[in-house]
This record gives sequence, structure tokens and C-alpha cells, in this order.
Amino acid sequence: MNRTGVLIVISGFSGAGKGTLMKRLMECYDNYALSISMTTRAPRPGEENGVHYFFVDKETFEKTIAEDGLIEYASYCGNYYGTPRAYVENCLSEGKDVILEIEIQGACKIREKYPDAVLVFVTPPDGAELEKRLSGRGTETDEVIRTRLQRAIEEAEGIENYDYIVVNDELDRCMEDIHAIVRAAGCRMKESVSRIESISDELSSYLKGEKE
Amino acid sequence: MNRTGVLIVISGFSGAGKGTLMKRLMECYDNYALSISMTTRAPRPGEENGVHYFFVDKETFEKTIAEDGLIEYASYCGNYYGTPRAYVENCLSEGKDVILEIEIQGACKIREKYPDAVLVFVTPPDGAELEKRLSGRGTETDEVIRTRLQRAIEEAEGIENYDYIVVNDELDRCMEDIHAIVRAAGCRMKESVSRIESISDELSSYLKGEKE
Repeated sequence: MNRTGVLIVISGFSGAGKGTLMKRLMECYDNYALSISMTTRAPRPGEENGVHYFFVDKETFEKTIAEDGLIEYASYCGNYYGTPRAYVENCLSEGKDVILEIEIQGACKIREKYPDAVLVFVTPPDGAELEKRLSGRGTETDEVIRTRLQRAIEEAEGIENYDYIVVNDELDRCMEDIHAIVRAAGCRMKESVSRIESISDELSSYLKGEKE
Repeated sequence: MNRTGVLIVISGFSGAGKGTLMKRLMECYDNYALSISMTTRAPRPGEENGVHYFFVDKETFEKTIAEDGLIEYASYCGNYYGTPRAYVENCLSEGKDVILEIEIQGACKIREKYPDAVLVFVTPPDGAELEKRLSGRGTETDEVIRTRLQRAIEEAEGIENYDYIVVNDELDRCMEDIHAIVRAAGCRMKESVSRIESISDELSSYLKGEKE
């Protein structure tokens, strides 16, 4: 049976542990493909081109926009971030469930273009835990942390746009929640309604005596 | 965390194996409660009162209707079938996920009264398989089988009312689909939106310097 994959958008508070979650999901199940974003921001230490992001210059990014090569893009803190179209659409047509880790602006654009996409928001259990995680990284200044907290508040304002909220209090439980959400999405009525119609037709033929 | 349970309606073609599925689900997971219907039809061989159904007379059934003691009821082939309210609502408030195995008429009534209920339709993989299963029971006359096939066609006409369709080609895979659907339902945005709002408030207080 050649099913189309599910498109999953994962967003959430900075510091909610999205990266670790996605990594764990990819380790445990083989039906997922993780989309790699294109960005004009500079790589952070340890980030690799083609692994964490496709790092490109502004000119290349804008050329890709012009060629309709991105399914969504947004600018944030003076840099572009976008999702290359080809990889996502190829994986979906191969039946892979494709994960996009993007923020609220992008998530809303995805919903417009792909109404069947599933939008998941990841949150730590509470605000104190979130503050702790953001401060705990130890690599950011107080000002950056405050900017992130401000940004988190803004992110939360779009929460009604999401289909699901998963609480990342325990990594594997949270990962299994996401996996269940994707599995359920594959069972949505629209995915199989044609099967039911064809069973009905078959039964009708049988009742009319057209077949034994 | 005191979550309210999920109300799950399971319908599907006669012969789709719903009974076996429910039994397997109850064996494998302990978060479920299976609602027992009340009916005025006579018990079949092997059916026990309080296990398969609550078998009552017409007068008792109509008294229960008058007392608003059923969350839905319908009549089918000259008999009443209904879902007693108390058991369902007690289990839900205890956080149990409650399964109702009812047909399309009842499912639509549940959807009206419990908009958050999840409606799942179970189907065999194809019409030939369904005919085989219905005939294969060996306990029914040709006429009964034809009536069931006719009924199956009618059931399928309400398919757009369901949220999910699960294909019962392999028992455990299908059971895990249903379990994923219920798990996902517990993560729906509405279930946790208040958590996000309270995190936002906490972060705002922090930024305003009202707490450290």
C-alpha cells in the first residue's frame, strides 16, 4: 500500500529539548525523515553544513525564494531561515513522515500550503523548568536569555494554531507521544475513505448477484 | 496530573473483528474501560448479563431513557440498545479512556453530546475478506448474511462522520493503531493549552523582575 507520508511541524519553546527529541525519534523509528533548513546565519561552533543547516549567503537564499524552491521561509534576528521544497516532497511521496523543526511564523505558512500537516508544540513541564534550561546552557548572556524568554512568550501566543501539545518532562515518554500522534495521523479518515467506498461497491455488487 | 479520559467510539463493519480488537486492547493496556451496553434483545448463547450486555426488558429500558440515564440509545431490528451514563462519566473523570462499541446512529449522538469524543471506524482490508468473515461464522443463514451486508453498506454511508479508519488486517498492528489514536487524543492542544498560558504568565513575571 503506497501511503503518502505525514508532514509534521515541531515547534516549541527554546530550551524545550526539541533537538534531543528529534534525534531520539530518528534513532528509534525508521519511518522519519528530518528536513534540513537553509539559513543565512553563520554556523555556530560544531554545526556542520548539510547536517544541522544548509548554510548559504543571502544572494543564494533569495535566488532559491525566487525559484519557488522553499515551502516556507521567514527572517528572524536579521537572518533568513527556510525549508527546501524538493527534499520534503520527495520524502512524503516515498511514504516517509517528514519532520520540520520550525517556529510559529513558518508553521502557519505550512498549514496554509499543506492543510494535512500536523502541528506539534513541545513544552517543558513549567516556566521554572524552562528558565532553568535556558540559563543552564551556560553559553548565553543574560541579555540573550531574556530575549529568548520574551520570544517564548510570543511563541505561546500562537498556541491555538497547533494541533497537539507534548510535555517534555521525560524524553522517551514525550518521544512516544509524538510517534503516536504521527501514527494516528496516518489513520485519519481522509487517508482511507476510498477503501471504504470500494468495499461498499463490492458488497453492492455481491448483493445484486453480480458476483458470488 | 489529573487528566480527563478520552471517550472513544468504535464502530465498523459487522465482521470487522471489533470484539477481538477490544479484548486485545484491554489485555495489553490498563488505561481503558469498556462500556457495557444495555439492550432489550435476548441474550445469544454464551452471552452473560453484565459482561456482554445488560439485558433488560422494554419497560426498564424506557424508564432509564426517561431518567436521562443513557448517553445515547437507538433501536435496531426491533430492539433497543443504549449506553448507560453513570459508568462512562465516572470512568472519564477518573482519567480512564472509555471505549464504546456502537453503530453509526449512536456514534453521531455521542459526537453531539461529547464533541471531544474520538470516532474510529474498523474495517477489514477488502470486501471479499468481509464477505468471507461474515459467511465464515457459519452460525447465520444466507438471509442474515445478506441483511448484514446490506447493513454494512449503510454503515459505510456515514463514514465521513468518523475521525479515523483502522484496517484490521493484522490484529496487533490494528490494536496499536487504536492505542496511538487514543494516546494522540490525550495530547490535543485543548488538553494542555492552560499549561502553556501559565508558563507564559510565569515568564512574563520573571521578565518584569517580579521574581528571580
